[in-house]
Amino acid sequence: MKMIVAISFIFSLLSLSHASVVDFCVADYNLPNGPAGYSCKTPSKVTENDFAYHGLAAAGNTSNIIKAAVTPAFDAQFAGLNGLGISLARLDLAAGGVIPLHTHPGASEVLVVIQGTICAGFVSSANTVYIKTLYKGDVMVFPQGLLHFQINSGGSNALAFVSFSSANPGLQILDFALFKSDFPTELITATTFIDAAVVKKLKGVLGGSG
Amino acid sequence: MKMIVAISFIFSLLSLSHASVVDFCVADYNLPNGPAGYSCKTPSKVTENDFAYHGLAAAGNTSNIIKAAVTPAFDAQFAGLNGLGISLARLDLAAGGVIPLHTHPGASEVLVVIQGTICAGFVSSANTVYIKTLYKGDVMVFPQGLLHFQINSGGSNALAFVSFSSANPGLQILDFALFKSDFPTELITATTFIDAAVVKKLKGVLGGSG
Amino acid sequence: MKMIVAISFIFSLLSLSHASVVDFCVADYNLPNGPAGYSCKTPSKVTENDFAYHGLAAAGNTSNIIKAAVTPAFDAQFAGLNGLGISLARLDLAAGGVIPLHTHPGASEVLVVIQGTICAGFVSSANTVYIKTLYKGDVMVFPQGLLHFQINSGGSNALAFVSFSSANPGLQILDFALFKSDFPTELITATTFIDAAVVKKLKGVLGGSG
Amino acid sequence: MKMIVAISFIFSLLSLSHASVVDFCVADYNLPNGPAGYSCKTPSKVTENDFAYHGLAAAGNTSNIIKAAVTPAFDAQFAGLNGLGISLARLDLAAGGVIPLHTHPGASEVLVVIQGTICAGFVSSANTVYIKTLYKGDVMVFPQGLLHFQINSGGSNALAFVSFSSANPGLQILDFALFKSDFPTELITATTFIDAAVVKKLKGVLGGSG
Amino acid sequence: MKMIVAISFIFSLLSLSHASVVDFCVADYNLPNGPAGYSCKTPSKVTENDFAYHGLAAAGNTSNIIKAAVTPAFDAQFAGLNGLGISLARLDLAAGGVIPLHTHPGASEVLVVIQGTICAGFVSSANTVYIKTLYKGDVMVFPQGLLHFQINSGGSNALAFVSFSSANPGLQILDFALFKSDFPTELITATTFIDAAVVKKLKGVLGGSG
Amino acid sequence: MKMIVAISFIFSLLSLSHASVVDFCVADYNLPNGPAGYSCKTPSKVTENDFAYHGLAAAGNTSNIIKAAVTPAFDAQFAGLNGLGISLARLDLAAGGVIPLHTHPGASEVLVVIQGTICAGFVSSANTVYIKTLYKGDVMVFPQGLLHFQINSGGSNALAFVSFSSANPGLQILDFALFKSDFPTELITATTFIDAAVVKKLKGVLGGSG
Repeated sequence: MKMIVAISFIFSLLSLSHASVVDFCVADYNLPNGPAGYSCKTPSKVTENDFAYHGLAAAGNTSNIIKAAVTPAFDAQFAGLNGLGISLARLDLAAGGVIPLHTHPGASEVLVVIQGTICAGFVSSANTVYIKTLYKGDVMVFPQGLLHFQINSGGSNALAFVSFSSANPGLQILDFALFKSDFPTELITATTFIDAAVVKKLKGVLGGSG
Repeated sequence: MKMIVAISFIFSLLSLSHASVVDFCVADYNLPNGPAGYSCKTPSKVTENDFAYHGLAAAGNTSNIIKAAVTPAFDAQFAGLNGLGISLARLDLAAGGVIPLHTHPGASEVLVVIQGTICAGFVSSANTVYIKTLYKGDVMVFPQGLLHFQINSGGSNALAFVSFSSANPGLQILDFALFKSDFPTELITATTFIDAAVVKKLKGVLGGSG
Repeated sequence: MKMIVAISFIFSLLSLSHASVVDFCVADYNLPNGPAGYSCKTPSKVTENDFAYHGLAAAGNTSNIIKAAVTPAFDAQFAGLNGLGISLARLDLAAGGVIPLHTHPGASEVLVVIQGTICAGFVSSANTVYIKTLYKGDVMVFPQGLLHFQINSGGSNALAFVSFSSANPGLQILDFALFKSDFPTELITATTFIDAAVVKKLKGVLGGSG
Repeated sequence: MKMIVAISFIFSLLSLSHASVVDFCVADYNLPNGPAGYSCKTPSKVTENDFAYHGLAAAGNTSNIIKAAVTPAFDAQFAGLNGLGISLARLDLAAGGVIPLHTHPGASEVLVVIQGTICAGFVSSANTVYIKTLYKGDVMVFPQGLLHFQINSGGSNALAFVSFSSANPGLQILDFALFKSDFPTELITATTFIDAAVVKKLKGVLGGSG
Repeated sequence: MKMIVAISFIFSLLSLSHASVVDFCVADYNLPNGPAGYSCKTPSKVTENDFAYHGLAAAGNTSNIIKAAVTPAFDAQFAGLNGLGISLARLDLAAGGVIPLHTHPGASEVLVVIQGTICAGFVSSANTVYIKTLYKGDVMVFPQGLLHFQINSGGSNALAFVSFSSANPGLQILDFALFKSDFPTELITATTFIDAAVVKKLKGVLGGSG
Repeated sequence: MKMIVAISFIFSLLSLSHASVVDFCVADYNLPNGPAGYSCKTPSKVTENDFAYHGLAAAGNTSNIIKAAVTPAFDAQFAGLNGLGISLARLDLAAGGVIPLHTHPGASEVLVVIQGTICAGFVSSANTVYIKTLYKGDVMVFPQGLLHFQINSGGSNALAFVSFSSANPGLQILDFALFKSDFPTELITATTFIDAAVVKKLKGVLGGSG
């Protein structure tokens, strides 16, 4: 008898949690999204697989001009992160690989070196440059929104994992913003003082127009 | 008699407000600051002058290479803004003036044109460029952390006021970060694909080293 | 060949950004909204026009009892602001114009005088009044949620732009809340100690009922 | 004439407020929810009843094994709380009643004793235990996410109201998480060092499996 | 042997927690405060008494013009609340008692009636008035920053506890802001349209000047 | 001449950034801390070493009862993280190693497996258990404040790095909270239904008292 009451009491708690957005909000990509992230998948349909992600297990393809790859696990790829204020990515750098100068408009970043040697740095609003050579197990933090880079400064492949203080940090690669876009050459020249000839040459390499 | 009780009741509320950090936290630059801003000035020493700022009344000096000036009223200049999540700046652009490509690492920005004609734009993480020509009274928003610029696209002086979604938005001017800093030329070249010769030339103009 | 790989790498980044809510969330007024703002317009349909707003270019109509007008550019009017934590408004005050005592329930405000002379002030929780006379180019900050006002204290038209630390600051005008609503007169009298006769007279002027 | 202009001015403000998410966002449980809460009910359909809740007026049923009941008024029960960052609950403890050790994953809690005597405590990350015996009118705060409990330490019924720093604080009761779930016994034993026999016995009482 | 290692491992965790600001930040009123609250008391000096508050146990003195009392337990009174985003207060209303029209600039509020009958209401930015009569155990929410009131609508004493979505919600009582301050009468009249005679009379009652 | 003006313009920007708390706030452990973190080190004294951390490079000592070690890089250890909303830790698990059931009161967590095989899981507020076996390169997310664990489910050493959505996530290990503290046995028994004999035995092993 007591048991029956207890169990009904327990089920009332269960129903509460299922009805509410408590604990987590796994992204449902078929519903609208908003400033705080994606809409939530119905809790009863959520499984353990929504909280795990396999997409960072394989090395990214580094057969490209930067000899490097950034493989993101943001809320757009990893539904379980939605609304939790954190995400991550895998950095693969072949010998000579470079993650070009870039920013994450909405997040700070921490990097941990898993393999190889990485030279990383960022520039502050005061135009001060902070550069470190990082070895296996070393960690570096890049404050929110600042220009930063990672270079493979060893002779072999390098691997790092990075985490972000947002489920949706964004990634703006300077060269792609300028030279892989349709940013008019005259405006790039006017706002960066880089000669039009240089701009056009880099647009040719990266596929930009305008 | 009732009055005496009422007044004592009123004073208890007064003392509460004075003791707490309620309502505002005018910056006291002589005390430590933290991630949320500066320490608070003692409320009893706060006057109306702490909430007003005269530093944007005069045009900035545009006799420089960019023919433009950014005059900030951030928490570091305007103590009354501290902790309130908003700040502003004045943009003066002489004929041909340019606010070079830059970001605000920690804030979104809205711009309103007061005088003249301004061509403004930003680039998204998707490398899409959004550009508008703005006239007197027009407003434009620049989402947090993205590269953006303003150019005087009219023949006469232009004036705009901008506001930020932070008391401390930061300002990272791309050319200053690269060419007015001690960012090593070889690393700039490696992370931007801009030729060393171009980098050295721009460092010469802007005063960078390395 | 390298180029093909590089471009595929670049497009993977593009697709990521398009899929995610990164960078911005332009309001789609046809979808549900939530505590953080409106749902996001599909990024591929967003254009530069979503980030600009023309509605503040013209002076508001000041031919009314307050000889003033507040023209908002909040997220409900300016879709590009959605979720970015900032908004603005235009204040027009004819000679003798007054923005009556009001609050913004969810935001702090900064004001910059563009034309004329404005006497502005606010009252703190400690019942301290902070009042300043502001001239062209002067700035004042009004901490979140506090009663404040602006009066044209010069002989000619005055113009100011104000910004808010929220895309959705709200605007509660004291007189409209009391006298232009259906707030029962007996409750207004009981909770403000203002005589019923005064309340009824002001309701008559402003169109309140109850 | 003036009146007509004034009223049109007033209605423009009204329409603004109705169109925007300003002030409040009463939950509409039929629309999607997201990380920030539920979608908003159309403001024109909101009534005073959306802001009041009657569900805490009656004592919870304490005829159960814990001789206690937690009756929540979270955003899932009280639609008017949605997005406002606060919620509450009613605690009823019969003689000998216990709210077992639990956490609120997303919120801090304050408790006020209305009737009876309650012994309450929490454990910090430093494994320090803070315990107080609370009498009628006493208040205690439980910092976010820490294990805490409440026990009726008097001879008669006890009543308390608790509030949370979130509209959706969550409630994880340790014994239910371990012994009323399908948490495999071998994993509970491995991660808590509690003998399998003890785990199985408690699962039997609380209805757990695995 | 194992034990020694285990204990050293345990102490390393202890020292970590003591060194960091984790879990709580009990206010130290002798150190500077900032926008996020007061500085933290040294964790080793924190006791259970810092997390409990006795100041709401006794009824407030209602022998005053409003026949009511608001007794706050904000971070300025209750050090343990500092930085936790929640606070509370006790409302005592004698027969005929009124908490005059007021706002909390930085927080939403929930009220629960413990004794008696309370008529409570608030006005939205759309000038819509939401009023409810609340009985023992009823709850009402008042969204952030909006004008609201509570009236004892029964014949006997009423008691309520209110909680706020901030450790430091602020309290701006309309009548005190206008009539118990040094707000110049001419400016009150100009910004509220209330006759100077009425303003002066209320200032006389409440002790205002100017 | 132009250069001189330009450089003075540049220095004004420099001084701004140095004066403000913009970009970062490296912890100064000798100054007070507050709810938002530690006070900031003077920017001019900050070096690249403040943004890098070497403490996770070496494996933690797993010669203890759990055959595992958690090595934190929170703001209390890694000053450069202060105020940036992110931190990390290294998990070393020898064969048979276990990170016992625990919570992080103030943060969500993501885990990436670097070496070996890890069985990880968490329990929701609805008492649903989500368990996954993770291999090299797999990622799992643990939503804020929920009980979770990691077990080495392979035959060899396992290594993982975890990141948190706070610079100061906290760590509450269930067994240490209950059995390595001075939590009175009678209260543990009353609030967990675990027999006193079992509690005393575990306190004996872990060093608890009371």
